[in-house]
Amino acid sequence: MAKISALSGFPEWLPAQRLVEQHVIDVFREVAELHGFSEIQTRAVEPLSQLLRKGEIDKEVYVLRRLHAEEGDGETADPDRTLGLHFDLTVPLARYVLEHQNDLAFPFRRFQIQKVWRGERPQDGRFREFYQADLDVIGQDTLPGHIEADVAVVMAEILDRLPLPPVTIHVNTRRLSEGFFRAIGLQDLTAVLRSLDKLPKIGREAVRELLVSDAGASPEQAEKCLDFAQIRTRDDSFAQQVRDLGGSGETVEEGITELTAVMHRVEAAVPGVIRADLSIARGLDYYTGTVFETFVEGHESLGSICSGGRYDQLAADNRHTYPGVGLSIGLSRLVSRMLSADLARPSRPVPTCVLVAVADEEARPASDAAATALRRRGIACEVAPTAAKFGKQIRYADRRGIPFVWFPSSEGSDEVKDIRSGEQAPADATTWEPPAEDRWIRIAPTGR
Amino acid sequence: MAKISALSGFPEWLPAQRLVEQHVIDVFREVAELHGFSEIQTRAVEPLSQLLRKGEIDKEVYVLRRLHAEEGDGETADPDRTLGLHFDLTVPLARYVLEHQNDLAFPFRRFQIQKVWRGERPQDGRFREFYQADLDVIGQDTLPGHIEADVAVVMAEILDRLPLPPVTIHVNTRRLSEGFFRAIGLQDLTAVLRSLDKLPKIGREAVRELLVSDAGASPEQAEKCLDFAQIRTRDDSFAQQVRDLGGSGETVEEGITELTAVMHRVEAAVPGVIRADLSIARGLDYYTGTVFETFVEGHESLGSICSGGRYDQLAADNRHTYPGVGLSIGLSRLVSRMLSADLARPSRPVPTCVLVAVADEEARPASDAAATALRRRGIACEVAPTAAKFGKQIRYADRRGIPFVWFPSSEGSDEVKDIRSGEQAPADATTWEPPAEDRWIRIAPTGR
Repeated sequence: MAKISALSGFPEWLPAQRLVEQHVIDVFREVAELHGFSEIQTRAVEPLSQLLRKGEIDKEVYVLRRLHAEEGDGETADPDRTLGLHFDLTVPLARYVLEHQNDLAFPFRRFQIQKVWRGERPQDGRFREFYQADLDVIGQDTLPGHIEADVAVVMAEILDRLPLPPVTIHVNTRRLSEGFFRAIGLQDLTAVLRSLDKLPKIGREAVRELLVSDAGASPEQAEKCLDFAQIRTRDDSFAQQVRDLGGSGETVEEGITELTAVMHRVEAAVPGVIRADLSIARGLDYYTGTVFETFVEGHESLGSICSGGRYDQLAADNRHTYPGVGLSIGLSRLVSRMLSADLARPSRPVPTCVLVAVADEEARPASDAAATALRRRGIACEVAPTAAKFGKQIRYADRRGIPFVWFPSSEGSDEVKDIRSGEQAPADATTWEPPAEDRWIRIAPTGR
Repeated sequence: MAKISALSGFPEWLPAQRLVEQHVIDVFREVAELHGFSEIQTRAVEPLSQLLRKGEIDKEVYVLRRLHAEEGDGETADPDRTLGLHFDLTVPLARYVLEHQNDLAFPFRRFQIQKVWRGERPQDGRFREFYQADLDVIGQDTLPGHIEADVAVVMAEILDRLPLPPVTIHVNTRRLSEGFFRAIGLQDLTAVLRSLDKLPKIGREAVRELLVSDAGASPEQAEKCLDFAQIRTRDDSFAQQVRDLGGSGETVEEGITELTAVMHRVEAAVPGVIRADLSIARGLDYYTGTVFETFVEGHESLGSICSGGRYDQLAADNRHTYPGVGLSIGLSRLVSRMLSADLARPSRPVPTCVLVAVADEEARPASDAAATALRRRGIACEVAPTAAKFGKQIRYADRRGIPFVWFPSSEGSDEVKDIRSGEQAPADATTWEPPAEDRWIRIAPTGR
């Protein structure tokens, strides 16, 4: 027998923990479908040439090879024929959209919840296998600007329904940042963004030096950049602060209009969740409009649990360009924290609501009949595996976390016991209802 | 841009097709939970040593390697450290049970729906990546016999709820076959089973020869084996037929009792689905009790869509042995046939029930408000992406398969149009209900 052990970076949950993960997935799906998003799933593998298209993430890819590949059939030097596991759901989406463009209606509203794999060293709570949950709207050649707010509203509703401490969606827009830096006379916007991105890590003083040394800023310009990056408002007062710092011109005003619109739309849908945060610089080189990052109160160390934005070219061929707006939740990372910090718990650890007791093996058909009657009305139950003494059957239910034990009777005088309170009462399997809070498993926040 | 193309053996569905697949998964989950089964998911990878434990499937395994693995960190000669993708859900279950035995309550009722990978040549409709859906009850050291019928009942209920042509579960038991072959004087049971397993492929005459040449049967014994393997009954009349052929003795009678019990239990739960089929020989070397195979009427060429049975040792360590009963659906293979043969169809191709029209961009907030009111009551809707002419917005809905278009009005006199009938009527977004059959997507059999 080979050694049995957990693999670092490949999380696995116990059944009760899996209920929390599945709940997060269910909420995501329910809200996404309510907003007219269609689910797709893509194959787990892509040609290596697709995976390495951006050229920067090659270290993370897991390459596949058939253990006993025939000659010319396994891994080859040809990156079009070698397969790797996908490391996100964006590369597969780009390929899927191009491959199926004639069968899709645009704007294409899709969500996708699948495992992805990254061969990183599993440190800092990074996983090698984890769920991502993505939400994107993809246009063919064009995509209206208001979609940016639309997608943010859907994500805000998803996050709002999850059993989490308060969540804040931080939002910025590339136009506003770029417009401001230009307005105060800076040219090397990439260098400015790269410097500001280091704020949380190295602090204000060090970033000021970087802005001067790397981004060609004067001390005054550097100071203004730092002040700009400190603007965080829950309403549209960010606009006046930007103008007061010297932000002016068409691009700045466009950025203000854009950001204000997103904030108003999200605020109307889910009050209190959105916040303008002009320090967001990460990804502004990739995203071309609004950008989002999301933090959980008290768990800021997790980093952003949900990020994304507008990008002008997800994919393109010689006929069409596909712009998009997308947001992505690092679902396993979030669930892992929910479990380790005990943020949410299922109301019971198993789906079973009722254990139907068995008086003796000859009476098992009566127990089966009671279970069938309960299931017919959607009440999850199982029949005791053995006709042990009732005390032992009750302990079995208790150990598994099953709240009710049913005692069938040949005389039609069944009884049901709530083993938490010890209360026992006559009941009819064709009509008995458990209390509403016990009918289904609920996943509730613990308030931590 | 790298070449975009489908990969043979890696099926992918369009959004409307994915709805069918998700429906099959949802039904599986709902029925399994109703019977008190807990879902687990296991990591996609196992050490190669685990995957090759049985020694016979090595050609199918995909081995992983990090593209830029550091020295001593990638694939090694050590099969305990090299990782491969799982090719079924049984090997991972065995490992999971051993790894988590102290945190699980036995009998452990689990279901698991995940992708598996096999590096086979993708011919004969075989996939390299596909969903399996497994249902198992695992005991610690012991597992009562009646569990075999329990698991069959759950699977019968799942299959009964799927939008499929009539399904038949064929059942046999190892005790009955072995008892019968011994009763008529045969010794080499493995050879007998191996010969009979070839019946569908090579036919009666060729199997008769094999039984004589390979299994040491006399012509009379061979004839009896063939007659035995022809016994298929919808009720317990198989028992008399076995006895008439000379089947007698304790093992035969035990087998008859076992098989009768399973048939009665399943027949009571889902009438008409179960059938005794004494030709089932495949897997009788692995399974130690009842064995199941399942066929879809008119699609027998698919082979068994759901197989399994009782096994006395899923796993073991130096403290415990874990016997089990399990059934597994080849879900992707089944869904692929459902789609290609048009056996079932979603009532609409997208989740969206209502497209809310937009009169002009200034009026978009009114459209958003109507959509929010509808969603609040669980009616899936989306707002038109652009304020095109209403005719164009209606064609957009039509192209996407959205049944209703909503026209908001600033005077509170909204209207809703069923674009299939053309009927249009005043409506209030806070109270309007779509017809019940349009509220949710239904996946209905086409009757083919």
